[in-house]
Amino acid sequence: MISAKMKYLAANGSAIRAMFEEGKEMAAKYGRENVYDFSLGNPNTPAPEVIRQTAIELLRNSEPTWLHGYMSNVGYEDVRDSLAKSLNHRFGTDYTRANLIMTVGAAGAMNVALKTILDPGDEVVMQAPYFGEYNNYISNFEGVPVVVKPQEKDFSLNLAGMEEAIGPRTKAVILNSPNNPTGVIYPAEDLKAMAELLNSKQKEYGHAIYLISDEPYREIVFGGHSVPWLPDFYDNTFVGYSYSKSLSLPGERIGWLLISPRMEGVEEVIGAASVANRILGFVNAPSLFQQVVGRCADEVSDMGVYIRNKELLYKELTAYGYQMVEPKGAFYMFPKCPIADDKAFCQAAKKYRILIVPGSTFAGPGYFRLAFCVSEKTVQDSLEGFKALAHEFGMN
Amino acid sequence: MISAKMKYLAANGSAIRAMFEEGKEMAAKYGRENVYDFSLGNPNTPAPEVIRQTAIELLRNSEPTWLHGYMSNVGYEDVRDSLAKSLNHRFGTDYTRANLIMTVGAAGAMNVALKTILDPGDEVVMQAPYFGEYNNYISNFEGVPVVVKPQEKDFSLNLAGMEEAIGPRTKAVILNSPNNPTGVIYPAEDLKAMAELLNSKQKEYGHAIYLISDEPYREIVFGGHSVPWLPDFYDNTFVGYSYSKSLSLPGERIGWLLISPRMEGVEEVIGAASVANRILGFVNAPSLFQQVVGRCADEVSDMGVYIRNKELLYKELTAYGYQMVEPKGAFYMFPKCPIADDKAFCQAAKKYRILIVPGSTFAGPGYFRLAFCVSEKTVQDSLEGFKALAHEFGMN
Repeated sequence: MISAKMKYLAANGSAIRAMFEEGKEMAAKYGRENVYDFSLGNPNTPAPEVIRQTAIELLRNSEPTWLHGYMSNVGYEDVRDSLAKSLNHRFGTDYTRANLIMTVGAAGAMNVALKTILDPGDEVVMQAPYFGEYNNYISNFEGVPVVVKPQEKDFSLNLAGMEEAIGPRTKAVILNSPNNPTGVIYPAEDLKAMAELLNSKQKEYGHAIYLISDEPYREIVFGGHSVPWLPDFYDNTFVGYSYSKSLSLPGERIGWLLISPRMEGVEEVIGAASVANRILGFVNAPSLFQQVVGRCADEVSDMGVYIRNKELLYKELTAYGYQMVEPKGAFYMFPKCPIADDKAFCQAAKKYRILIVPGSTFAGPGYFRLAFCVSEKTVQDSLEGFKALAHEFGMN
Repeated sequence: MISAKMKYLAANGSAIRAMFEEGKEMAAKYGRENVYDFSLGNPNTPAPEVIRQTAIELLRNSEPTWLHGYMSNVGYEDVRDSLAKSLNHRFGTDYTRANLIMTVGAAGAMNVALKTILDPGDEVVMQAPYFGEYNNYISNFEGVPVVVKPQEKDFSLNLAGMEEAIGPRTKAVILNSPNNPTGVIYPAEDLKAMAELLNSKQKEYGHAIYLISDEPYREIVFGGHSVPWLPDFYDNTFVGYSYSKSLSLPGERIGWLLISPRMEGVEEVIGAASVANRILGFVNAPSLFQQVVGRCADEVSDMGVYIRNKELLYKELTAYGYQMVEPKGAFYMFPKCPIADDKAFCQAAKKYRILIVPGSTFAGPGYFRLAFCVSEKTVQDSLEGFKALAHEFGMN
C-alpha cells in the first residue's frame, strides 16, 4: 500500500548507495584496508582545522537559543551577507543576502529550485552522462527528464543535441561543471554558445527557460583550470552549491541556492523558493553550520590528495589499457568498460575487492565511474587489482 | 513562469512566518523587550549544557571525515541503536535501529512518511484545528487534505467526524498530541477507540490506513499528564519526532521517523522511506547533531519556564475574560477571539505590540494561537496589553 512511485524506486534503489552499503559489509569481512571502495563521493580529506575551531568557538561563546534557534527560512542574515560578499569578491558581482537561500546541501538547493519552477509535465534537459539523482529530483515535482546524448570523444557540451531536446515544455536545463561523473569542465566559449541557444529558445517559446547549475565540485580543479561563473553568461540562472566537497562536510548538509538578480521576476522567484525551502520539510539549513560556513567563506580543504590520486590513477589506468577522458576537476573519472555490459564489468571488479559504479547509473552505459576521493594508500593498493582486471578482460 | 502551485503559495505565505519577520522588524523599531512576540514555536529555554559539552567533545576528539562524512541515508547505526534502546526503555518496546530513520526534524519525518505512502489523489484526514503546514506537506505529493470538525468544547478527538471523513481514498490520518495549537493531549481511551475505528475502516476498504503521529511536543506536559505511545494502540503507525522542542534545537533540524515493526509490509516501507529521505534532498540528517542526540537520548531542556508561563497566562487571561481550554502540554494556548474575525483581532493586538496568530491559520477560525515559549519577563510585561485588548473588545 505504499505509493506506486516509491514501490518502484525502493525496488530499483540507488546503485551508488547499494554499493556504499556493500562496501561497509566487505570492509567488515576483509578489513577496511583490503577493500578499494571507489563508489561514493565521500571526501577522504578532512575538513580544515579552522572548521573545528570555529564550531567549538561558536558552541562555547554563543547563546544556545540563538545558535540552535529558528532564523528566517532563508537563513541567517549575517551568514548570507558574508557569503554574498565572498562571491562578489570572487566574481565581481553585486549580490546581496536577498540573492542567497541557505539550503540543506546542494541536493536541497536543487529540490528547492525545481519545486519553485516545475509544473507537472514540464521538461528538464540534461546531457548524459549525469548524476542519476537528478531524475528523482525532477520526478519529485512530476517533471520529465529529457536526455541529450553525450559527445563521447571528450564529453563536451552537445549543443546540437541540446537544441533538438529543447521544446515548448522545456522549463529548465541542469548543468554540472566540474562534472560528475566525467570530471569535465565546460569552457567559457561553450557556455556562451549555450546561453545564446537558451536565449533564442526563450524567445521562440515565449517563456523563461531556467539554467540550474549544480556546483558542488567548483573548488576541485586540476592543472590550473577554472570554472566559469554561469550567471555571468545567462540571466535566468540558479546556482546550487554545497560545502560537502569544498570543506569536506557532506554529512552536515550545508549549502546554498543563488538566484541571479538578473533573473526574470526575481523577487517572486526568491519568495517562492523561500516557501519551497520551508514546506519541503527542510524549514532552514542547519543553524550551527550556517554560522560556521559564514565565518569560513573563503576556506577550502586541502585538495592535494585528489590531485595526486588523479595523477596516479590516470597514469596507471591508461597504461593498463583503460580508455578515458582526463578529468579537469571534481574527483571522478569515467573510463570506458572493455565490454558493453558495464554492470557485469563492475561485478567482475569486486573479485579484486574494487568497488566502482556502472556508467548506466549516470545514463552513460558502457562506462564506469571511479570516485577517487579516497586515501592515497587505497589508490596505490588498488592498482594491482585494476591491472589484473584489465588483464582478465584482455585490455593489455 | 514559476510553478502555478508555488505562485499561489508565495502569494499566500505562512501567517506564522510573516509574523516572525514582522516581529523582528518591530523588535528593531521598539526594542526587543517592548515587543511581545507569541507568534513562533521557537524555544526560549536553552539547550541543556550537556548538549554544548557533547558537541564540543565530538568536535575535539573525532576524526572529521567520520564526524562530518556521509553515513547510510537512514543515519548512523550507533545513533539509531542508542535511540531504539532509549525508546524501548521508556515504552517497553523491542525496536531496533531498523525501525528508525534519522531525519531533518519532524518536518522532514512527516514529508518522508507522506512521500512513502501517498499516490496522487490519496486523502489524508486531520482534525481541526491543526498545524497548517500539514496541508503543504500533503500537497507536496499531490495528496488531498480532509478536515474533521473540532469539538470546540474541549478539542477532544471527534471520532464520529473522523468516521464520516474516512473513505475509500483515505491513505492516512495525521495526529498531533500534545497538540499544536490547542495544547490538548488525547487520552488512551480515545486513542483506543480511534484505533478500533481505523482497523474497521481498513477492513471495510481492504487497504492500509496509516496513522502518522507528529510528536515534537511529547516531552512538554503539565500537571503530571502523560502522552500515550501510539504504536501500542495501532499497528500501521509512523511516529515523527524532533529535538527542536525537547532539546531546544529547532535550527539544527534533527529528529527521527519511527516505523512500527508491526506495520503491514514493514520492510518494504522502511526501504521506501529510506529512499524518500535521500531523494527529497535531505540525503541524511545532519551528522554532528545525529551523534549529539545519540549520546543525549534521555536529556530534556528545563521545561520550568513553559510551566510557569502557562500557569500565569492561563490565570490572568481567563481573569481578563479570554475563554480557552487549559493546555495540558506543548507550549501553545488557543483562546477564543471576542469577534468572529480572528485576523482583525490579531491585527488589533499589534497596537499593544502583542504578536499572536489567527486561528484560521490552523483551520480554527474565531480563535488565536499564543506560543508561550518566551521568557517569563515577556509574559509578565505583556499582561497589561492583553488586559487592554480585552477591555477594547468589551470582554470584561
